[in-house]
Amino acid sequence: MAARISNFNPGPAALPLQVLEEVRDEFLNFKGSGMSIAEISHRSAVFEDVLNDAVARVKRLLKLSDDCKVLFLQGGASLQFSMIPMNLIPDGSSADYINTGTWATKAITEVQILKKPHKVIASSQDRDFRYIPKDFTISPGAAYLHVTSNNTIKGTQWQEFPDPGNVPLVSDMSSDILSRAFDPRPFGLIYAGAQKNLGPAGVTLVIIRNDMLERVPKDIPTLLRYTTHAEKNSLYNTPPCVAIYMVQLVLKWLEDSVGGLQAMEKANREKSDLIYGAIDKSGFYKGTADPDSRSMMNVTFRLPDENLEKKFVAEALAEGMGGLKGHRSVGGCRASIYNATGIDVVQGLVDFMKVFEQKNG
Amino acid sequence: MAARISNFNPGPAALPLQVLEEVRDEFLNFKGSGMSIAEISHRSAVFEDVLNDAVARVKRLLKLSDDCKVLFLQGGASLQFSMIPMNLIPDGSSADYINTGTWATKAITEVQILKKPHKVIASSQDRDFRYIPKDFTISPGAAYLHVTSNNTIKGTQWQEFPDPGNVPLVSDMSSDILSRAFDPRPFGLIYAGAQKNLGPAGVTLVIIRNDMLERVPKDIPTLLRYTTHAEKNSLYNTPPCVAIYMVQLVLKWLEDSVGGLQAMEKANREKSDLIYGAIDKSGFYKGTADPDSRSMMNVTFRLPDENLEKKFVAEALAEGMGGLKGHRSVGGCRASIYNATGIDVVQGLVDFMKVFEQKNG
Repeated sequence: MAARISNFNPGPAALPLQVLEEVRDEFLNFKGSGMSIAEISHRSAVFEDVLNDAVARVKRLLKLSDDCKVLFLQGGASLQFSMIPMNLIPDGSSADYINTGTWATKAITEVQILKKPHKVIASSQDRDFRYIPKDFTISPGAAYLHVTSNNTIKGTQWQEFPDPGNVPLVSDMSSDILSRAFDPRPFGLIYAGAQKNLGPAGVTLVIIRNDMLERVPKDIPTLLRYTTHAEKNSLYNTPPCVAIYMVQLVLKWLEDSVGGLQAMEKANREKSDLIYGAIDKSGFYKGTADPDSRSMMNVTFRLPDENLEKKFVAEALAEGMGGLKGHRSVGGCRASIYNATGIDVVQGLVDFMKVFEQKNG
Repeated sequence: MAARISNFNPGPAALPLQVLEEVRDEFLNFKGSGMSIAEISHRSAVFEDVLNDAVARVKRLLKLSDDCKVLFLQGGASLQFSMIPMNLIPDGSSADYINTGTWATKAITEVQILKKPHKVIASSQDRDFRYIPKDFTISPGAAYLHVTSNNTIKGTQWQEFPDPGNVPLVSDMSSDILSRAFDPRPFGLIYAGAQKNLGPAGVTLVIIRNDMLERVPKDIPTLLRYTTHAEKNSLYNTPPCVAIYMVQLVLKWLEDSVGGLQAMEKANREKSDLIYGAIDKSGFYKGTADPDSRSMMNVTFRLPDENLEKKFVAEALAEGMGGLKGHRSVGGCRASIYNATGIDVVQGLVDFMKVFEQKNG
């Protein structure tokens, strides 16, 4: 196996090589402290610098106002599915959800378990979640509207977020955070597990607007209240220091080496256009998402039959391209091409796809 | 600053150098996979090997029967404070708690927030938590008895766990897990944040007996149910892969290099005897915990006045010994000497203490 493979994993996923090299190079002695980042106190100035730099970079990259808090929590998006309704649906209020696939369904399941008032105002389940719903009416006065920005498993993505009027948007951006520019102002809360575009698994980015913090009830467990973490700059209890440090390095790479969010979006657009273009020109590969709902991050496609799909995945791996198998719940193939996946890696896949089609088509 | 300092941090804390070196050496290409451990799928065979090896080593080291599950969760001990009463106090039942300091108090606060029936059957608050209570009566039929095995802040530790009869013991062992041998059979649940004896911050070890899993209600959030994680071998959602991998390496070091729990306990006893011996021989340093309640992990002591304490901490740091300041809530000095702290490092501190006393006594 080559020293580094082309990694199309859906998450945990490829990270920028320069980030991995920096972690390695200072792993035994972080910034001259004489300790590893894994050994440093979370209450030390050297770690607070890491945390505060990560917060500042998220704010700059997403053009956030000072009217919000940037938090680094544990438990993944899966814990957010519960924390959001626990914290943000006040008594007498109800939340809207749009169901666009597996992860949105899980978010809806948790609001159901909590028996919190809610309404699923749209769903694309009728066509196996191949598209993003367009026709829906947001409930006036809803506590929030929850949308899953990008659907890793089905390969769909909101091209533009809905205009929610006065209703705060709440979005799971686990699989496309910091991949493109958008107007953050309608969002009351944004959350993202780190393991696709931000860093390693084990830390969850939460951006919460200050007016949402005012809703947080006092009678839920301390660690599940957003206010607990907001008041202590994510240092109420020991945070996942190594993961936050790696996120900080990824943010630095995105801001200083890539050149920010517009440059990142342009690169991501080129990468996904390259694969979708190859699929659309071919009668052999078939995209599974409706063209107007296609994800820039996860390109899902089928081959003429399952045996060919297995062969495709195996031969790609033999050529040093890993992670191309579709999610176990849907089958087929999937190329996850997050921020850290270079255009050269995508070009390599497209070249392989052409050769494979010539041999097997 | 020297390449590596003597690290007396209370957590995150010193890790074995050979573990840090192994992480560094394979950080860009984990086991020939062509990916970093930070990039590898948690559903891959190569990661499941890491996870399963960690589970097996915990079972061997603690001599656990097969009648329990070893889980790696997120959220730290602080989330366990809430998960335990949510999961393990069935309707009509009540839990017993013993209050031995800051962390036990936090555990009790969470059972109060949840309005779950409970009783604090003993407390050492009357003497500022300087001792472990001896006289208490466990409530017959209690759901469990919760004890904090080692009190990081006050420097006390249960020398022997209470005999709870038929009541399951539940213990926060965050700061002394795997530091000494004990009979695991009375324990229904053991939990420990990793960042003292196990690895980096960001993963929490939970050992739960199968009969406790039967109590778990179905109407609490999915991620907060122990059954969710037990049924999926900690892979219900993406786990903190890098942190689990580092824990696995620490467990390997403990089992294969140190030689297991009895050897570890012997070394820890020698280390703590060395410092307590130096304190007891001196009229200058004064231990804060009652001698029969002293912790092997966190040695807390005072100097004649606060200015001398500041000077002690500063001069020790200048000599390459970090983390000796007491917790901000109690002041004084504290040497945290977890598993990875070698006797040579402790001897260095004791030598420094003698010289400091000669100069300032």
